[in-house]
Amino acid sequence: MIGHGFMGAAHSQGWRVAPRFFDLPAAVEMAVVVGRSEESTRAAAEKWGWAEAATDWREVIARDDIDIVDIVTPGDSHAEIAIAALEAGKHVMCEKPLANTVAEAEAMTAAAERAAAQGVRSMVGFTYRRVPAATFARDLVAAGRIGEVRQVRAEYLQDWLSDADAPLTWRLQKERAGSGALGDIGAHAIDLTEFITGEHVTRVSGVVETIVTERPLLGEGIGLSGTASAERGAVTVDDLALFTGRLESGALASFEASRFRTGRKNALRIEVSGSAGALSFDLERMNELEFYDATAAETELGFRRILVTEHDHPYVSAWWPTGHMLGYEHGFSHQVVDFVAAIADGSQPHPSFAEGLHVQRVLDAVQQSSAQGSAWLDVG
Amino acid sequence: MIGHGFMGAAHSQGWRVAPRFFDLPAAVEMAVVVGRSEESTRAAAEKWGWAEAATDWREVIARDDIDIVDIVTPGDSHAEIAIAALEAGKHVMCEKPLANTVAEAEAMTAAAERAAAQGVRSMVGFTYRRVPAATFARDLVAAGRIGEVRQVRAEYLQDWLSDADAPLTWRLQKERAGSGALGDIGAHAIDLTEFITGEHVTRVSGVVETIVTERPLLGEGIGLSGTASAERGAVTVDDLALFTGRLESGALASFEASRFRTGRKNALRIEVSGSAGALSFDLERMNELEFYDATAAETELGFRRILVTEHDHPYVSAWWPTGHMLGYEHGFSHQVVDFVAAIADGSQPHPSFAEGLHVQRVLDAVQQSSAQGSAWLDVG
Amino acid sequence: MIGHGFMGAAHSQGWRVAPRFFDLPAAVEMAVVVGRSEESTRAAAEKWGWAEAATDWREVIARDDIDIVDIVTPGDSHAEIAIAALEAGKHVMCEKPLANTVAEAEAMTAAAERAAAQGVRSMVGFTYRRVPAATFARDLVAAGRIGEVRQVRAEYLQDWLSDADAPLTWRLQKERAGSGALGDIGAHAIDLTEFITGEHVTRVSGVVETIVTERPLLGEGIGLSGTASAERGAVTVDDLALFTGRLESGALASFEASRFRTGRKNALRIEVSGSAGALSFDLERMNELEFYDATAAETELGFRRILVTEHDHPYVSAWWPTGHMLGYEHGFSHQVVDFVAAIADGSQPHPSFAEGLHVQRVLDAVQQSSAQGSAWLDVG
Amino acid sequence: MIGHGFMGAAHSQGWRVAPRFFDLPAAVEMAVVVGRSEESTRAAAEKWGWAEAATDWREVIARDDIDIVDIVTPGDSHAEIAIAALEAGKHVMCEKPLANTVAEAEAMTAAAERAAAQGVRSMVGFTYRRVPAATFARDLVAAGRIGEVRQVRAEYLQDWLSDADAPLTWRLQKERAGSGALGDIGAHAIDLTEFITGEHVTRVSGVVETIVTERPLLGEGIGLSGTASAERGAVTVDDLALFTGRLESGALASFEASRFRTGRKNALRIEVSGSAGALSFDLERMNELEFYDATAAETELGFRRILVTEHDHPYVSAWWPTGHMLGYEHGFSHQVVDFVAAIADGSQPHPSFAEGLHVQRVLDAVQQSSAQGSAWLDVG
Repeated sequence: MIGHGFMGAAHSQGWRVAPRFFDLPAAVEMAVVVGRSEESTRAAAEKWGWAEAATDWREVIARDDIDIVDIVTPGDSHAEIAIAALEAGKHVMCEKPLANTVAEAEAMTAAAERAAAQGVRSMVGFTYRRVPAATFARDLVAAGRIGEVRQVRAEYLQDWLSDADAPLTWRLQKERAGSGALGDIGAHAIDLTEFITGEHVTRVSGVVETIVTERPLLGEGIGLSGTASAERGAVTVDDLALFTGRLESGALASFEASRFRTGRKNALRIEVSGSAGALSFDLERMNELEFYDATAAETELGFRRILVTEHDHPYVSAWWPTGHMLGYEHGFSHQVVDFVAAIADGSQPHPSFAEGLHVQRVLDAVQQSSAQGSAWLDVG
Repeated sequence: MIGHGFMGAAHSQGWRVAPRFFDLPAAVEMAVVVGRSEESTRAAAEKWGWAEAATDWREVIARDDIDIVDIVTPGDSHAEIAIAALEAGKHVMCEKPLANTVAEAEAMTAAAERAAAQGVRSMVGFTYRRVPAATFARDLVAAGRIGEVRQVRAEYLQDWLSDADAPLTWRLQKERAGSGALGDIGAHAIDLTEFITGEHVTRVSGVVETIVTERPLLGEGIGLSGTASAERGAVTVDDLALFTGRLESGALASFEASRFRTGRKNALRIEVSGSAGALSFDLERMNELEFYDATAAETELGFRRILVTEHDHPYVSAWWPTGHMLGYEHGFSHQVVDFVAAIADGSQPHPSFAEGLHVQRVLDAVQQSSAQGSAWLDVG
Repeated sequence: MIGHGFMGAAHSQGWRVAPRFFDLPAAVEMAVVVGRSEESTRAAAEKWGWAEAATDWREVIARDDIDIVDIVTPGDSHAEIAIAALEAGKHVMCEKPLANTVAEAEAMTAAAERAAAQGVRSMVGFTYRRVPAATFARDLVAAGRIGEVRQVRAEYLQDWLSDADAPLTWRLQKERAGSGALGDIGAHAIDLTEFITGEHVTRVSGVVETIVTERPLLGEGIGLSGTASAERGAVTVDDLALFTGRLESGALASFEASRFRTGRKNALRIEVSGSAGALSFDLERMNELEFYDATAAETELGFRRILVTEHDHPYVSAWWPTGHMLGYEHGFSHQVVDFVAAIADGSQPHPSFAEGLHVQRVLDAVQQSSAQGSAWLDVG
Repeated sequence: MIGHGFMGAAHSQGWRVAPRFFDLPAAVEMAVVVGRSEESTRAAAEKWGWAEAATDWREVIARDDIDIVDIVTPGDSHAEIAIAALEAGKHVMCEKPLANTVAEAEAMTAAAERAAAQGVRSMVGFTYRRVPAATFARDLVAAGRIGEVRQVRAEYLQDWLSDADAPLTWRLQKERAGSGALGDIGAHAIDLTEFITGEHVTRVSGVVETIVTERPLLGEGIGLSGTASAERGAVTVDDLALFTGRLESGALASFEASRFRTGRKNALRIEVSGSAGALSFDLERMNELEFYDATAAETELGFRRILVTEHDHPYVSAWWPTGHMLGYEHGFSHQVVDFVAAIADGSQPHPSFAEGLHVQRVLDAVQQSSAQGSAWLDVG
């Protein structure tokens, strides 16, 4: 595993727990964690249960005893590491976004496709696909339970920037974070839409903006929790994106990615409206899926709240009995399970780098549309 | 109409509005309202749209041009007025509770049965039966949509006594109010249970109590909104009742009537659990009924929120299009509609006085059970 | 009252009931209802309780004993009737949309402003403003309880066109209906946004479209409930509109008006996100308002479900005690109350014709933006 | 760890994960798992990550390198193992119920108290106390945020016996399962009530019964998932318990434990109503706590849905950022954290064996009350 921030913790938990609940086709060993600083990487290794700590990722991917490389570094280093690892014949799991630019994502996708021809697998970490309710929503759509998709509403709502005096952390500086609400959370809304409907977004029109453009600087050497200083600096990433996309079938999907929806903490929500039913999901109630069957008798129509904790729901039987809830990190185990299975049976795990590239192209098109007065633009 | 308090307003609205939305089999005229004080009765007549005001109810029921008597006085006068009216050949609608004592309710029921033999109709005002969602719940049970009834939970929760300094109004004095939470709101929970399941409560065990036993007295001559004085007086009615009832089928129903469920304003709730499904209703969301169909596929099980506003739902087609909400007073129009229809076609409207009497007997048995250490007692 | 369709029923109920629950400063008489057909107008007069029926509105507005004209005809006749009535010195309540074209709405507004100088009042029927929860939301924003408005999401979702075989009624034909989802329900979303925030939409970008473009024709002479024939005709109004608006303060509001949101029956929803809190309303739960106070302790943050049925909530004290629900038509009584009060005290009731005109201009700009590839356009 | 069924999986996950997210004051090693069958115990050791497997628990507790014994066997062996372990100076975590009889629980409690004098710690596994929302509820009550406790409603609702043809598994046979709904899930409702209110149940009255008394036998040698045979056998444990308890303060708490509440999968719910507010929790939405602050302005009263995922909520800061959900098994980590901390600092972890004993006494009193016609009985 290369990198050991917040995503490192989540991925480590996935690797550690998956073999305890699922029968993996191959044994998994948590071999090496790689970071820049020797000290903090060693601490991470101990804390997260990796056998070794290392500081040079090139050395690690050159090792014969390493089969899988899991990349959880910031987006600007994904391309270099992933391409090198693929070329070294390592299976690669890469945290989303695939890259910070479309060009990099294209190069990575090309590398992934060359590697695939050699039996080397790759996958992007859009983990919310593997929340059981989301996978089950995909299954219901695929089974025709809501008929033809007519319309989609997808939103990812947070509120941690509502306060104009929230400090100017590195996440609000473009050169370090790469992207703002659009790239960071909007990407999930796009991926989930494409995953559940089985359709690509082909054209977009939208607006991306920064609501609060200046925020208090943090004092020197102070982290996220530092006291803000009186001075203010420019916020250089977006904090709100509103856009509309055309799906392959012609249906319209409307999107929102916002960090100003006061009171909404982590509301990745999607509602898919079809000719014969509808589905509604909210990550804040991730163990539930609302399903409306329009073919019921008129007097018995209604959204039903399905607790997605039954034995036959995706991934659920490996865990606890009916009615016992799963949490955020279970998706990371499911990701490990599917990735290891794909490696073992030689299939392509989803989402592929090509799918990750497609999401990057949508993000790119939205930004260009915004710059051109919300003109409709084709996606890549 | 005899009486003109809060219930008088609701009943007047029922009589006024019903003919505008429903095709009644007979024209209805709002003839006379009767009260004790000439002045306030005249004001009520004008405010609520009655043609005349009168102060002697005996004179009014003796009039030939009066066909229907609607009784909305306090419970202690119901028996005398209703029996006289029935004997005078008037159809009688009587607000719940049917009477303050079982003996009175028995006499009224006997009178109602004698009158019925002459084609004179009578009915008790348990209006919540006629909320469309409640009537529809009854229909679903009757149609076998939830299978055999296994268990019932019924509760009526309010919170206006949570504050220990809420004043000692007449409603908290037995000699004036007759009963507390049990008789006033518990009666609705019992009636709704019997209506929806189609079964009587046959035995009970429970506890009735007064949580706050002393409250500030109101200053002299001051009404509900008066300022409380420093002196305190005894609360002489119950403010909480918890009891269990056995239904005819053998199933258990558990009941609660409380004025201490902080934050619950008017939560008459009932959940009926059956062998093939379940129903859940809450008066605070009176346009909705939750329905669980246990025969659905395992992965698609869930309570569905039915908006009971479709054309084919009970009473709804007379009002507004799908998705337009009804409120508290619509039940009073439905009551008028059904009562007038029963008079016109010579059928027995529900709930009959006999049904009202049965509820009184359940209330009585609960109070006796409480006095006997929650012993199980047969109902009447 | 001129016209007597669905809206005629609702307005009649408003006029009939308002004086029974509110103390109006002037007595109201339901004098004349006007329609094209003598027979059906006479039936409407009887059904809805109007003293007379008439077929020539010009004669009626010429009568000295008429003070108020309530217009509930289709939009294409609003301008002619309203202007004539205002010039005849009658106070005018006009159902929304103010008119079918901006030009007509401008003429009406000019007439209203001339009339106002003579003490003649006019008002547009955006009745959802007067749902207590909506008025209370406006009050909370005005009182600063959510701080500065950062963002608005407003949507009006229905599903009666989800079925591609729903028949081609007159509501789907432009020459008769004037507008589709945008004008009919989107107008409410715009008005509610402007009412609650106290801000105008100044610029828009969006897309308006028709998802199902051909539908079965109805057999000859058959109405809404007729059997569909095998032949299909063109749907000539939109059934989906997605747009973004810029408010005066600079905040963005995103809008949706759809008749394809399967399972949503009448979901006029608005969420206003502010720097110190947020509000969320859904017409399908019209007695509730969700309020988030961002100034609470971190551990106690959360949307609270306010039952808007307390004595001090707008309009509520005239009706029932705490916890008793209001329904769809109560807003029509509130509208009467405020209109009569404004006439009596010589103030301008809201929304004025100018406000109605503004909404028309927003609708017009959205349609033009859609025609120009979602380009941003100034509103009027 | 002694035992390795469903609870063994959950406890193993607690021991494995806790040190990765929390800074424990001592390193924890997962040393030995003990079971009856060598083969299945070895499989469990490998699957759940224990270093060794053993079949003789007496040998294991005699080992010097073992400091903690975690008992997850069926209830009938708890007393023997726990007492032996405590006498051997091992710290003991014992899954609930503490024992199958009050006498055993008394002996265990006596042993625990003797051991405590030697610095040996013991604790019962009522893990739902350690769902962050439940712990936070306790904190709010303790801080006076809801004033005096007036009333409690606690219920644990499941539905897996709704189907009369669900087979007669060992869980429905008294000699193997020990108890039915009352002991298995009712115990959680009692413990949570006592934990959150800080009060003991002192007297009870109630009814315990078996709704479906005969069920299809399982074919020979067939487990839970076996096909039912045509023959039926007697269900010898209860499947429904309804009871009322008096708390130390005098407040009444009403309880329900049911396996016939169709559609409710794992609904451990508690609502505590106080003089200044109320709290409502439902395990099916375990990341949420509803809080009602009765001291708010009248127009702003309402239950607020707190997402218990903020940094300052109990246990949360160790996991993920705001808005990321926890699941069922996180409580087992919290249990490990608190137990290890108590061992390290020499304090008494909660719930103590004495608390577990008290719950057993309540259960026992409920059963006796039921046998005596719901008579009120003192608890132990």
